[in-house]
Amino acid sequence: MSSPVKRLAILGSTGSIGQQTLDIVRAFPQRFRIVGLAAGKNLDLLTRQIDEFKPDFACYDPANCSSSKVQACLNVPRCQFISREEIASHPDADLVVIATAGKAGLSPTLAAVKAGKRIALANKESLVMAGAIITRELKKTGATIIPVDSEHSAIWQCLNGEKQKAARIILTASGGPFYRFTSSQLAGVTVEQALTHPSWKMGKKVTIDSATMMNKGLEVMEAHWLFGMPYDCISILVHPECIVHSMVEFVDGMVKAQMGCPDMRLPIQYALSYPQRLDNPQLPRIDWGKLRKLTFEPPDMARFPCLKMALAAAKSGDTYPVVLATADELAVELFLAGRIKFTDIASLIEKALERHQPRHAPGLEEIMAADAWTKETVLKLAGGEK
Amino acid sequence: MSSPVKRLAILGSTGSIGQQTLDIVRAFPQRFRIVGLAAGKNLDLLTRQIDEFKPDFACYDPANCSSSKVQACLNVPRCQFISREEIASHPDADLVVIATAGKAGLSPTLAAVKAGKRIALANKESLVMAGAIITRELKKTGATIIPVDSEHSAIWQCLNGEKQKAARIILTASGGPFYRFTSSQLAGVTVEQALTHPSWKMGKKVTIDSATMMNKGLEVMEAHWLFGMPYDCISILVHPECIVHSMVEFVDGMVKAQMGCPDMRLPIQYALSYPQRLDNPQLPRIDWGKLRKLTFEPPDMARFPCLKMALAAAKSGDTYPVVLATADELAVELFLAGRIKFTDIASLIEKALERHQPRHAPGLEEIMAADAWTKETVLKLAGGEK
Repeated sequence: MSSPVKRLAILGSTGSIGQQTLDIVRAFPQRFRIVGLAAGKNLDLLTRQIDEFKPDFACYDPANCSSSKVQACLNVPRCQFISREEIASHPDADLVVIATAGKAGLSPTLAAVKAGKRIALANKESLVMAGAIITRELKKTGATIIPVDSEHSAIWQCLNGEKQKAARIILTASGGPFYRFTSSQLAGVTVEQALTHPSWKMGKKVTIDSATMMNKGLEVMEAHWLFGMPYDCISILVHPECIVHSMVEFVDGMVKAQMGCPDMRLPIQYALSYPQRLDNPQLPRIDWGKLRKLTFEPPDMARFPCLKMALAAAKSGDTYPVVLATADELAVELFLAGRIKFTDIASLIEKALERHQPRHAPGLEEIMAADAWTKETVLKLAGGEK
Repeated sequence: MSSPVKRLAILGSTGSIGQQTLDIVRAFPQRFRIVGLAAGKNLDLLTRQIDEFKPDFACYDPANCSSSKVQACLNVPRCQFISREEIASHPDADLVVIATAGKAGLSPTLAAVKAGKRIALANKESLVMAGAIITRELKKTGATIIPVDSEHSAIWQCLNGEKQKAARIILTASGGPFYRFTSSQLAGVTVEQALTHPSWKMGKKVTIDSATMMNKGLEVMEAHWLFGMPYDCISILVHPECIVHSMVEFVDGMVKAQMGCPDMRLPIQYALSYPQRLDNPQLPRIDWGKLRKLTFEPPDMARFPCLKMALAAAKSGDTYPVVLATADELAVELFLAGRIKFTDIASLIEKALERHQPRHAPGLEEIMAADAWTKETVLKLAGGEK
């Protein structure tokens, strides 16, 4: 089969997903070529990546970088520096990988969608904050989003070839490192403990979100927008083995599940190669001689209030998901900086949601206003204001 | 969506699969119409079915029926009696359901394939005995086989929409009612015990085959022919919960599984409605709040010699699969008649296989000769000849 080279632009190339995406590109130099790279803070790594992959254009965040490092980076020959939105919408990119962490992914995602690109989306916050706007633009421009999150990649794969919509989506959740912890044990969780995920190798933000189970709440919203699925038709099952990545139930009661070893390179490679699959000997396979047991249980909302709040914010809609996502992002930063306890993450988000005056059917401006209000409110609350 | 009525011919309409197929037809009178029915022995039931579904043509086996019953059946108005091969290849049938048990399914399957029909195939012996011939004819005529067996339906569903062949097929097996029995317990198994399957409601032949695990061996051959999969790329996992109906591994290490309650009406309905799925409230759904555990283990070939012999016969090819299928069918009959012990089923098949002089790349004539030779040999062996 003839396979022309696919030209990739990667936003967030120095993060966990970005680096693993480049691992796949390294494994298939005949199939993929990097035309654009964008990173936030890690200019050292970006410089090395530019050196290795020789993209035509790149982007860094000058606010986060020392001028000497910027100089080293700018000295790389034949690379033009443009904005991340220009990279996300560049006509030379056949596939735009959005691996930016947190709400910084919103603006490049919107740019790519407006430009009608094919997008491999690893950023969930963009859909959580502006799902309605992105969905509207997708319909207008014909852009396509191929999910990179393992759960949504699983659902995408299960829906492949089906003539009808799913009747129900069942998102699986690892439960994170603390699923068997009591409430008082949870209060004493350290940053180091929270950054040690039992199964997945991921970035810091999503690893903490996985420990609070906020991650699963954000994923419910992501699934809602990606697959047009009503919230009542999305279930969550805790599945500590992380082998079944998610499931889809059809109108006839038949179910499809996608399984695999918990390794993000699998869904990343699939998003890059779709609709084809590539034989990559570096990727792990399930050992069928050793597979013995897959367990499932409904999530415990009492011990994981972030999940409960996320589902409530999802159903309330309006600007509540924006407040949830922004408050979470900030609270996780405060926790990682050692300024609040693990269980304070949920308390801060809860207080912000309580105080919020929602805006109905928000446009981008209202979303940004809710984001700014939340940031201010959470910082005040974390500063000790009751 | 407009859905013209699909016209069905059902061969084996009075058996377990046949009756469950008619249950689906009853649930969707606007979508399916019965144009042909064929049965072997149960003329009473066939007469009632003709009465209810008013097919244009029907078939019974006169050798098996008393003349008074035949008269009652023939008196049904507006129904023409033709041969089962004529039914299987009738131009008025949009879909031919082959639900005939055992090797009696071969002749109508071949007739349907030669006529280029769309076939819902529940009979595995036809592929086991004449897989090469059927595959050759399928390519010639453009006929399509949609599998009805739950395992093969699962694989078919998992392959749906994929651009590439599977890298591996993992057939799941319930293990049958005796999977934890010791060899000496197996020797004492009664007919009644063997006919009580822990999960599936099926016909007698397949229920006994399930208890000896011969069924899984036949299914490996069925999968080989249906999906063009080399035997080394087909694995078996014992999965007593019967929720995962089979799995497919792709070249990238990703796996898809199809799941559902163990109820044959699910894959039957899918084969009838494909590529659509129908919302049938009578069919059971997985209770996601109760799903707790799915277990898997490699099969124990030592206690289940039928499975081991089937895999060996599959790999040897030639006329060995014919001998295996015929010897099994006869041995199961002898067991059901109380003439041999449960463990004698395997011994009889083993002896027949040992004595067989195989024919390479057999045509239909050699297949029939091997079948006749096996019948004679097994009857002699069962009669006490050493």
